[in-house]
Amino acid sequence: MNVHSPGKPVIALAMGDPAGISPELTAKLVALEEVRSRARLVVIGDRRVFDEGARVAGLKAELASVSPSVDPRTLGGDAAFMDLGHLDPATVERGVASRAGGVFALENYRRALVLAREGRVDAVCFTPFNKKAMRLARPEYDDEISFSAEVAELKTPASEFNVLDKLWNARVTSHIALKEVASRLSVERIHRALKLTDECMRRAGFAEPRIAVAGLNPHAGDGGNFGREEIDIIEPAVEAGRKEGIAAEGPFPADTVFLRARNGAFDAVLTMYHDQGQIAMKLMGFDRGVTILGGFPFPICTPAHGTAYDIAGQGIASIGASRAALLLAAEMAGAARVGNREAAS
Amino acid sequence: MNVHSPGKPVIALAMGDPAGISPELTAKLVALEEVRSRARLVVIGDRRVFDEGARVAGLKAELASVSPSVDPRTLGGDAAFMDLGHLDPATVERGVASRAGGVFALENYRRALVLAREGRVDAVCFTPFNKKAMRLARPEYDDEISFSAEVAELKTPASEFNVLDKLWNARVTSHIALKEVASRLSVERIHRALKLTDECMRRAGFAEPRIAVAGLNPHAGDGGNFGREEIDIIEPAVEAGRKEGIAAEGPFPADTVFLRARNGAFDAVLTMYHDQGQIAMKLMGFDRGVTILGGFPFPICTPAHGTAYDIAGQGIASIGASRAALLLAAEMAGAARVGNREAAS
Repeated sequence: MNVHSPGKPVIALAMGDPAGISPELTAKLVALEEVRSRARLVVIGDRRVFDEGARVAGLKAELASVSPSVDPRTLGGDAAFMDLGHLDPATVERGVASRAGGVFALENYRRALVLAREGRVDAVCFTPFNKKAMRLARPEYDDEISFSAEVAELKTPASEFNVLDKLWNARVTSHIALKEVASRLSVERIHRALKLTDECMRRAGFAEPRIAVAGLNPHAGDGGNFGREEIDIIEPAVEAGRKEGIAAEGPFPADTVFLRARNGAFDAVLTMYHDQGQIAMKLMGFDRGVTILGGFPFPICTPAHGTAYDIAGQGIASIGASRAALLLAAEMAGAARVGNREAAS
Repeated sequence: MNVHSPGKPVIALAMGDPAGISPELTAKLVALEEVRSRARLVVIGDRRVFDEGARVAGLKAELASVSPSVDPRTLGGDAAFMDLGHLDPATVERGVASRAGGVFALENYRRALVLAREGRVDAVCFTPFNKKAMRLARPEYDDEISFSAEVAELKTPASEFNVLDKLWNARVTSHIALKEVASRLSVERIHRALKLTDECMRRAGFAEPRIAVAGLNPHAGDGGNFGREEIDIIEPAVEAGRKEGIAAEGPFPADTVFLRARNGAFDAVLTMYHDQGQIAMKLMGFDRGVTILGGFPFPICTPAHGTAYDIAGQGIASIGASRAALLLAAEMAGAARVGNREAAS
């Protein structure tokens, strides 16, 4: 059982890909008064890359460098920099995915996850990764989830959530071929995704999240005319969730459920496959949103957008999504700490 | 070969479901100066239902009733009403789908299609149908396309297009179960859809429509990691189209292609399945848009929205989508007439 120190949650902020906007975003985040008032930050990366980001952002970095072996909970102040000294910014070509960049980001993130696993920080955030660089560094790299589950030694299911403003999107299947989606769906799997969504949203402050479940087929199958998964699989899963007190509804036609959610009818949409949710979320401006890796014993949040190689180094990258990711991580970590204290008392 | 009279195109406007907003929309359309200056209208329905719609809309209907046997091309004036006298509005319960309502709408539409098939009108429009009422009237009713193809005696492929402002969406598969989508795709089928889209858009006034083709899988298959349809099927179809002079590009990831299209990079998106396009189009406001049935020798256009039973009879239904449908039909009919004259000269 972790024994947490009182006060603000401690968040490990791992620097992402060095060739994109991650360095400048990290520097901007650390400088935000709103962030420092809600969390104690431990930035993980190379101090020289960070300082170059601060220079690009036009900021003076106000945080002390500390040794990689220090326990973040023993540190005073609002922010510290855990300097791994593993990448010279002079070797980084801006706008180019490289193996060295991938190694840098993966190592920062791995350290953050280990700190969280050991209870030394309360949450993990990271600035954008570049998938190509990650694969150059680690050919088997598929996405953040499998890597995180491995490092965090997670034995239970994990899932990605996308959050835009107050609307959440979770999905039952993700990076698989479309032709495999239907065969991967089962009452058990959808029910499990529903429970994970409900739990994760409660941790993020929703008292009773209203979750709309999307159908799989056009017009949600039109009463069985265009597929029976709604009747045979999705409805029973929704029913099972409702019996456990989850405020789930559906299945609803995928082409209107996001309109209703955007209008406030639901807090979340659980979709059956990747593009069903991503088409909608990206059109609604998900670049401003936050991706959460849910199912871990600690929050993991990152801005939804990518490394933006085209504008890297100009200091014009918007901090909005990174700010939202960090504040959400702080909120979820705070809720978890209250929960842990209550459980321990 | 049809011999068209000069001047404005003649458009058959079939009244849709009588229990919804179709009667008031029909009356509003006929009253629009913009419509009457661009087309000669032959409204098909029951005059009493139309007059009740005009009353709801607060309009005085200014058009003569004519016999169902008249040839529309011989009529003078901007608009006439072809009175089938087949439905007493006193028997219509507003907001309720009924067999009688379905029979009414189907018969109006059938007459319009026959007039077009016989070359007596240049285009067909209809106000919204109610699918449930259509099925009560004709149990085998699936969608407008199969019914239209049957009545128009069409032997070649037809397809639905959705148009919002200047952005078109066509799809390779439509009302089928999602699990069947991948197996229904082929180079030939995608290529055919691409050609049909190109032809239909040229008829609608695009000199060289820029068509983006969506992938099937998440991240358009991510180079074969999440499915190979992009590599094996979609790319060759795009390539075949390009060789014929079609300005096609892709396949692109479905979750960003609509963002690019909305920003003006493309005139159309060809999607692989129903919800891939419908999720995006509905979020962008497709209720204001137009549905075109393409592949017929004459244009068929209808507003994208439904019968709006919840606001029927209040006179508040927006005319925007119906107006857009009629003006698009007039434009396409005009282009076809020019084409026919050129072909005959």
